[in-house]
Amino acid sequence: MVIKTKADYVKSLREQKHVVYYKGKRVEDVTTHPGFIPHINAAAKTYELALQPEHEDLMTAVSHLTGERINRFTHIHQNREDLIKKVQMMRLISHETGSCFQRCVGFDALNALYSTTAEIDEKYGTNYHQRLIEYVKYVQKSNIMVVGGMTDTKGDRSKSPSKQSDPDQFLHVVERRKDGIVVTGAKVHQTGAINSHEIVVMPTVALGEEDRDYAVAFASPLNAPGVVLIFGRQTNEERKFEKGIDIGNLEFGLVGGEALIIFDKVFVPWDRVFMCGEYDFAQMFVERFAALHRQNYGGCKGGLSDILVGACGVVSEYQGTGKASHIKDKLAEMMHLAETIYCCSVACSAMGHKMKAGNYEPDTLLANATKS
Amino acid sequence: MVIKTKADYVKSLREQKHVVYYKGKRVEDVTTHPGFIPHINAAAKTYELALQPEHEDLMTAVSHLTGERINRFTHIHQNREDLIKKVQMMRLISHETGSCFQRCVGFDALNALYSTTAEIDEKYGTNYHQRLIEYVKYVQKSNIMVVGGMTDTKGDRSKSPSKQSDPDQFLHVVERRKDGIVVTGAKVHQTGAINSHEIVVMPTVALGEEDRDYAVAFASPLNAPGVVLIFGRQTNEERKFEKGIDIGNLEFGLVGGEALIIFDKVFVPWDRVFMCGEYDFAQMFVERFAALHRQNYGGCKGGLSDILVGACGVVSEYQGTGKASHIKDKLAEMMHLAETIYCCSVACSAMGHKMKAGNYEPDTLLANATKS
Amino acid sequence: MVIKTKADYVKSLREQKHVVYYKGKRVEDVTTHPGFIPHINAAAKTYELALQPEHEDLMTAVSHLTGERINRFTHIHQNREDLIKKVQMMRLISHETGSCFQRCVGFDALNALYSTTAEIDEKYGTNYHQRLIEYVKYVQKSNIMVVGGMTDTKGDRSKSPSKQSDPDQFLHVVERRKDGIVVTGAKVHQTGAINSHEIVVMPTVALGEEDRDYAVAFASPLNAPGVVLIFGRQTNEERKFEKGIDIGNLEFGLVGGEALIIFDKVFVPWDRVFMCGEYDFAQMFVERFAALHRQNYGGCKGGLSDILVGACGVVSEYQGTGKASHIKDKLAEMMHLAETIYCCSVACSAMGHKMKAGNYEPDTLLANATKS
Amino acid sequence: MVIKTKADYVKSLREQKHVVYYKGKRVEDVTTHPGFIPHINAAAKTYELALQPEHEDLMTAVSHLTGERINRFTHIHQNREDLIKKVQMMRLISHETGSCFQRCVGFDALNALYSTTAEIDEKYGTNYHQRLIEYVKYVQKSNIMVVGGMTDTKGDRSKSPSKQSDPDQFLHVVERRKDGIVVTGAKVHQTGAINSHEIVVMPTVALGEEDRDYAVAFASPLNAPGVVLIFGRQTNEERKFEKGIDIGNLEFGLVGGEALIIFDKVFVPWDRVFMCGEYDFAQMFVERFAALHRQNYGGCKGGLSDILVGACGVVSEYQGTGKASHIKDKLAEMMHLAETIYCCSVACSAMGHKMKAGNYEPDTLLANATKS
Ligand SMILES: Cc1cc2nc3c(=O)[nH]c(=O)nc-3n(C[C@H](O)[C@H](O)[C@H](O)COP(=O)(O)OP(=O)(O)OC[C@H]3O[C@@H](n4cnc5c(N)ncnc54)[C@H](O)[C@@H]3O)c2cc1C
Ligand SMILES: Cc1cc2nc3c(=O)[nH]c(=O)nc-3n(C[C@H](O)[C@H](O)[C@H](O)COP(=O)(O)OP(=O)(O)OC[C@H]3O[C@@H](n4cnc5c(N)ncnc54)[C@H](O)[C@@H]3O)c2cc1C
Ligand SMILES: Cc1cc2nc3c(=O)[nH]c(=O)nc-3n(C[C@H](O)[C@H](O)[C@H](O)COP(=O)(O)OP(=O)(O)OC[C@H]3O[C@@H](n4cnc5c(N)ncnc54)[C@H](O)[C@@H]3O)c2cc1C
Ligand SMILES: Cc1cc2nc3c(=O)[nH]c(=O)nc-3n(C[C@H](O)[C@H](O)[C@H](O)COP(=O)(O)OP(=O)(O)OC[C@H]3O[C@@H](n4cnc5c(N)ncnc54)[C@H](O)[C@@H]3O)c2cc1C
Repeated sequence: MVIKTKADYVKSLREQKHVVYYKGKRVEDVTTHPGFIPHINAAAKTYELALQPEHEDLMTAVSHLTGERINRFTHIHQNREDLIKKVQMMRLISHETGSCFQRCVGFDALNALYSTTAEIDEKYGTNYHQRLIEYVKYVQKSNIMVVGGMTDTKGDRSKSPSKQSDPDQFLHVVERRKDGIVVTGAKVHQTGAINSHEIVVMPTVALGEEDRDYAVAFASPLNAPGVVLIFGRQTNEERKFEKGIDIGNLEFGLVGGEALIIFDKVFVPWDRVFMCGEYDFAQMFVERFAALHRQNYGGCKGGLSDILVGACGVVSEYQGTGKASHIKDKLAEMMHLAETIYCCSVACSAMGHKMKAGNYEPDTLLANATKS
Repeated sequence: MVIKTKADYVKSLREQKHVVYYKGKRVEDVTTHPGFIPHINAAAKTYELALQPEHEDLMTAVSHLTGERINRFTHIHQNREDLIKKVQMMRLISHETGSCFQRCVGFDALNALYSTTAEIDEKYGTNYHQRLIEYVKYVQKSNIMVVGGMTDTKGDRSKSPSKQSDPDQFLHVVERRKDGIVVTGAKVHQTGAINSHEIVVMPTVALGEEDRDYAVAFASPLNAPGVVLIFGRQTNEERKFEKGIDIGNLEFGLVGGEALIIFDKVFVPWDRVFMCGEYDFAQMFVERFAALHRQNYGGCKGGLSDILVGACGVVSEYQGTGKASHIKDKLAEMMHLAETIYCCSVACSAMGHKMKAGNYEPDTLLANATKS
Repeated sequence: MVIKTKADYVKSLREQKHVVYYKGKRVEDVTTHPGFIPHINAAAKTYELALQPEHEDLMTAVSHLTGERINRFTHIHQNREDLIKKVQMMRLISHETGSCFQRCVGFDALNALYSTTAEIDEKYGTNYHQRLIEYVKYVQKSNIMVVGGMTDTKGDRSKSPSKQSDPDQFLHVVERRKDGIVVTGAKVHQTGAINSHEIVVMPTVALGEEDRDYAVAFASPLNAPGVVLIFGRQTNEERKFEKGIDIGNLEFGLVGGEALIIFDKVFVPWDRVFMCGEYDFAQMFVERFAALHRQNYGGCKGGLSDILVGACGVVSEYQGTGKASHIKDKLAEMMHLAETIYCCSVACSAMGHKMKAGNYEPDTLLANATKS
Repeated sequence: MVIKTKADYVKSLREQKHVVYYKGKRVEDVTTHPGFIPHINAAAKTYELALQPEHEDLMTAVSHLTGERINRFTHIHQNREDLIKKVQMMRLISHETGSCFQRCVGFDALNALYSTTAEIDEKYGTNYHQRLIEYVKYVQKSNIMVVGGMTDTKGDRSKSPSKQSDPDQFLHVVERRKDGIVVTGAKVHQTGAINSHEIVVMPTVALGEEDRDYAVAFASPLNAPGVVLIFGRQTNEERKFEKGIDIGNLEFGLVGGEALIIFDKVFVPWDRVFMCGEYDFAQMFVERFAALHRQNYGGCKGGLSDILVGACGVVSEYQGTGKASHIKDKLAEMMHLAETIYCCSVACSAMGHKMKAGNYEPDTLLANATKS
């Protein structure tokens, strides 16, 4: 199925029948569950805006793999302009949703894997990069939503994955088969997981030789056998069931809707495996992913700040305090903060560099300035 | 009735039958309603701790009016030591509840009125001060919980009360009778209102001559005819109904439970009226109240910070990061902030001054340093 | 004369015989005066580095007017790359001097005038733009150092220039002649003035119709009759006379060496006048200049911070505290601040826009984020 | 000699003929040297104000040793009021001098030694406390100015005193004689040293058993053989020689005038030795001294801030910007900072505690909040 419209997106979610729990109960249809609707609405904006001609330049790109026009969330950045447009696209969508639209993590995961797989192949003679290219083509064509699965439950942070008393604190390979691998573990705080189609799993920390089984990256449909999604409780989430204004943003809610995703002996075929045992690339991968991810904040959070500044401005006018100098000072300070973080995102993009694989990544140091 | 124990306190609340609404429904017994229990538990600590011999010095005082040992929350500060003990008492209770215990606003209202009424009487030959003394004696003896009603709905902040398009944006006198006055209006964000016995109403802004009817201070039982309490929605309040750990602090909840209190032509007898028309004392009163109230923050918020620091410390130990220098730095910074605000509270107390009425109030400038 | 080397630069300064005072005494040769040598050394770096092949890309540019390779400090920005290179050039020079190299203000003045003169001409049919082009060509060819004269003494800030009790608080036209104008006033805090060749004078505030005579921009040699330079006192400047390490940076000193420049009936020929009476363009001009100037700070101050971070790192190693976590944290914080301001400079450049005159200017909002 | 007036103070300095160097040259009479006059003027204020009846309460105290009225800078704090008055006295003097008056370090040294010597004696049966009492009596009677010598040159901070490659990086006992000890080393950054009469030397870090010789505290006249004072360079100090306004504060200068004090085999008689070998008391002593010293900052720096706020206010009025809201906001912020640090000083005093020796010291935790 190729997803174009919001309707396509909702339909695809309804049909995929992934295993989702909300407050201890199995949810049959996520698309009609009040706890999920705002998140779906927000993510749907990434599809809807891409159909509007005036946003084509920011919301879409031309695939370097197929030459076809694709949703920018499935694109591999080809130059610095692409990096800057990513940031601008996010600020644009934030202006529409005033909430998290959840599609950045998978986007970043694919881009970080694009450069890393090429370099793993170069060192080890593997063929991860070609597999990834095929997967990217599939994502670009189908326009599916991909959750980026980085964060493990971690347990005792002073110990590496293989030293944990519970071996499943970090997701790992439990079996290597001819046709693929079997993995067990869990990824937490997975933004947009409930309303995504697939997950790209990646390592979350630097690894040593003894952590070889934890050096694993792959893609999997969320309805694969053994995958269970448990929705994480969100602040004030009961209000979504009332449909009143106490939810805040009536249509899009407030947050991205994080979930815990359990992998209970999940099978992944080899053509969806992008790292398996190359522990010495884990740290490099995490750094690249982090740079790509931190780059986003000036876009999406900058956009959220704009909404907040506007809201505060309106409130102060309603209250008759709009002209008070201390109010104006505070609004100016909020704007200054928003533009500063936006500057960091733009700058790490403008100073981005070409990778061996030919794609572009933002400047790591400046991307870190964005986040912290 | 004289309230000594938690049981006395709960019983008294149950019996007073004040008109309370929660999410649009009338609540018959506030003491058994899950939305209120944590707040009641926290406020009850102000009674319980006062019965423990080791806390006698901080939790109780000797009344300068009757010579009897009373709950400190009903005391009129007699010296700088009293002011410092007020702050220490609050930090102590915060350590027990980790939440707002709600009894400070009424306490501050009585103290601010104590000095102000004496000075109004001096200028206008009224007898507000003696009335207030009688009321204080009653509060000390009965040990009731008093909510401090300052904040009006306010409407257009650029206009004074009498200039609002809706005359009820600020509470005001609508009728002066032989036996008392009749008032209309509302007070918002009233901490602990649901589980209090009486309210002391005060003006909330400086007033001009044309706002004469808005210059009104009085005490009223919350079950007086015409008084309606509407509970304000609290963050994540649905979780209280589950009794699980998602509420945070299982016993005491997280906040003070603010309510909107509507006064619909409520009658107040003269012996409970402490200001009526003396608009030129409104600003002075507000400043005194504010100083007394800001003085509290280093006590209660300092105590809350202590709890948070401890919680963060425990979490970091659980996670195996307790020895990481950046974690220790952050904890130290939190402690520094807590002690700094505590210092402000202590200092404004130690620099407190004697008022014409004989009582003590904290230094205004230093009390302001506490809050901001 | 065409200035290429440091020797050329020093010789040209010696020969121009401008009127300079230092602590009340006339200075005959600025190039041998200890109070000025560090500033000359720092400014000379803008010439020296431009001769090094490895810095050609940042330190030089190709003139869009003549097609010749010129010092970037005389360039009119032709695209966003030029804007970014400006910032990078500044960080580079800061790394060499650890001090202000003083050549940015004149650079920014020419660029701001480039776009503004074109728009004045468009509205009023004047020919300022062509005059400016000729002047820019002269500056590019001769490679002279130009001080940017914006700040007036200002007097009472609550009054506009024409309302001051002293009409000379702002520089203004006192006579309009056939061959040119005569101006009187003073510009203060003129960075690098002592060791510059010419000044470009510009308005410093928004102006009204009654301030018409104050709406004046022009270029003048600093040795024109009536121009007097009074060196402003610098912190610890006596130390320069000792040549010991107490000066800090032995070769380049610490600051840019600001001067007060008095204009006492100075004649300016028409072909050096770029604004004369068009008060309605003063504000626009000031904003454009400010954006160009604020853009610099992430470059030069970012570079200074790098030097400071390095120096602190070395000191901590000498002292045996290099591994202490609180020291490393502080260095990281300093770096974070430096990279954040650099991000702002890069971002306002990357988001720069083309002006009607064809040149490029940085994004105003983001440039403001840089400064504050 | 008993020092009462400024004239007494200056005369006593002139007569004591201590060995002082300024920029490499021996200074014969410190009282007429322009480099020192402002510091002497500022310190003299501690004598002058004590003679003014309106300041008697803050500037003087009654000695608990002799019952005589003494300058508060020679007092041993007897209660919390004394501690608070210390802070108030400092804010008062800062208002007069707008500069460091230098007399706190010795004051704090004596108070910290007062409690510590008593506890050393208790553990080791020594008689340091009585010696100290005699010395305090002498200081109270003569009213001399005492510099507090804590900071050593320290060398490699990762090593303890006895582990330094140069044994003199920390001051230490080189000979124990029948009549006294001989010490070698240096103390740096000694505020007010040039214009003091005696020094009280103390350890500056926690010490181990192997650092026994470094555990030494004593008093010595600054004109003792072997004591050499080298004045440290001060910012813009050449301006003092001009007597113009460029010095800033014409009469009192800007800083306290720190010196390096070299001890080259200096003999100290036993009755001036207050610690000698009791390394296990070094850390406790340093903490007590630090608490007493940090307590000061809200007084003296609070007072300096007041001066700055006033100066900024005047400047803004001169410039016609006094009513601009962003100017008023900044002044308010400066005041808030000053009052907050003052609150910390007052609070650590109000929460001070009685020591075993009977004197009072400020609360350590709250005193630390003051400084950082
Ligand atoms: C709103 C939200 C959305 C998110 N969305 C996603 C998502 O879509 N996909 C995804 O994969 N993740 C997601 N995350 C997870 C996020 O990436 C992690 O929360 C983050 O990386 C921190 O990890 P943690 O929560 O395990 O904290 P920890 O890593 O445990 O850190 C807690 C503290 O401990 C310190 N610490 C940790 N380890 C050590 C150590 N070894 N030594 C010293 N100090 C240490 C840290 O510095 C930090 O101060 C989301 C999180 C949030 C809040
Ligand atoms: C947790 C909590 C508990 C509380 N408990 C109590 C309680 O027990 N009893 C009680 O009486 N109140 C209580 N309050 C109310 C509290 O005192 C008020 O919220 C506070 O005084 C601010 O008033 P406001 O909300 O009307 O804000 P506003 O006064 O409207 O202020 C909003 C903003 O507008 C500005 N502003 C307001 N007026 C003007 C003007 N004329 N000109 C320029 N600027 C202006 C303010 O500076 C501020 O920045 C509580 C509030 C909270 C949050
Ligand atoms: C190191 C250094 C180098 C410099 N180099 C140069 C240079 O090379 N060329 C050059 O032309 N200038 C130079 N300057 C001057 C600099 O541009 C000015 O200092 C700056 O623009 C501020 O002007 P000002 O000093 O007159 O301060 P003011 O403009 O007087 O500002 C002082 C304060 O008053 C406020 N204020 C001013 N006017 C008003 C008003 N009407 N209403 C309300 N508030 C007001 C301001 O916001 C500010 O807070 C330099 C300055 C420094 C410190
Ligand atoms: C204006 C002024 C007046 C003064 N007046 C006096 C005075 O009158 N009498 C007096 O005795 N002193 C005086 N001093 C000295 C002052 O007490 C010291 O500067 C201060 O205690 C810091 O000591 P330091 O300069 O040796 O710095 P250091 O102690 O070397 O500290 C430098 C940095 O290194 C870190 N560090 C140091 N040791 C370690 C370690 N082992 N492990 C990890 N990190 C470490 C510190 O935390 C700090 O960040 C004065 C100082 C000033 C600036």
